[in-house]
Amino acid sequence: MRKVSESTVRRLSLYLRFLEQSLVHGLTTISSGDLARRGGTTSAQVRKDLSSFGSFGKRGLGYSVPQLATRIRDILGLGRAYRVVLVGAGKIGGALVHYEGFRQRGFQIGAIYDRDPKKVGSRWNGVVVRDVKRLEADLTKEPSDIAIVTTPAESAQAVVDALVAAGVPAILNFAPVPLDVPAGVFLKHVNMALELEALSYALANR
Amino acid sequence: MRKVSESTVRRLSLYLRFLEQSLVHGLTTISSGDLARRGGTTSAQVRKDLSSFGSFGKRGLGYSVPQLATRIRDILGLGRAYRVVLVGAGKIGGALVHYEGFRQRGFQIGAIYDRDPKKVGSRWNGVVVRDVKRLEADLTKEPSDIAIVTTPAESAQAVVDALVAAGVPAILNFAPVPLDVPAGVFLKHVNMALELEALSYALANR
Repeated sequence: MRKVSESTVRRLSLYLRFLEQSLVHGLTTISSGDLARRGGTTSAQVRKDLSSFGSFGKRGLGYSVPQLATRIRDILGLGRAYRVVLVGAGKIGGALVHYEGFRQRGFQIGAIYDRDPKKVGSRWNGVVVRDVKRLEADLTKEPSDIAIVTTPAESAQAVVDALVAAGVPAILNFAPVPLDVPAGVFLKHVNMALELEALSYALANR
Repeated sequence: MRKVSESTVRRLSLYLRFLEQSLVHGLTTISSGDLARRGGTTSAQVRKDLSSFGSFGKRGLGYSVPQLATRIRDILGLGRAYRVVLVGAGKIGGALVHYEGFRQRGFQIGAIYDRDPKKVGSRWNGVVVRDVKRLEADLTKEPSDIAIVTTPAESAQAVVDALVAAGVPAILNFAPVPLDVPAGVFLKHVNMALELEALSYALANR
């Protein structure tokens, strides 16, 4: 399978959501035009995105909703559960621990870490907050696929270094700071302001 | 100015962050290659993205960091403040109200609404939570540019209908449900699981 761009992966996630909603509504086929509207793109782009992964759909008939949903889940690696640790039991961390959408997709937050003794030992959505000092030792015993970093900016690089040292291969960073990871570790930054900037762009260019 | 795609707007936001960090480090020029690495794209794409908005940069010299930063802020409509209301004083709402990145970019959360009498009247990061029954009347007196919806799924459409009726032109939705808005209203969905899916894709296709 050839590597595709980050924007393509993002659109595949959006197509998948639309396909799943369509399944709930009993639809069995769907056109590239319908998928395009949901993915914020064109029919030509939908066909190009999907053709990267083999042949789908029949000319004039559209795509089979269940088949395409299964195939996209497979492409996105969603056929299995992922063990996730979260570091930083602050407000964003708390919101994410309670976010149902993660569990529904197979992303299971199995441990939460913080350095604040007042938080350590408390229970967040059923998961006990542990002392961040235990992070590396715990990960050696219980390896994780993905870590979510929601610490303040000044602690984030040290936390990421510990995660990398403990062999965590993928990191989602909410701290507002650029971070260094070695080649082979996947790092994604989330910035809530980006979404608002897309709206300010739309308002400024009406 | 011609309309550009959502992915281009997103990359412009990423370029802007990198330019601002470069300014802090005293850099005056930057290459399309440097911008490409930060935007997760290619030099050719960077040049294409920026050429949509006029002529930037000099062959072999790169782009002027302060000039390009100013131009992108202008393109993204970030030269002004935006009044934002937030509806849904739950965990994600609470995290967003405290998110410094919004205020830094000129997105000012001026009012928070909830229907829970226990929350109404409490103060979140200096902003008093108001009864959602007041939403339409308040917006008539204090128009807002953008609304952030962080209600449960089942309340989101009714809230969005009220926002649209009160003339709010742009909505950022965190509720896990598709929403209808009339033409001319800008609606963006945020789904935290999308970012994790990009990582599961990377892990599945190593």
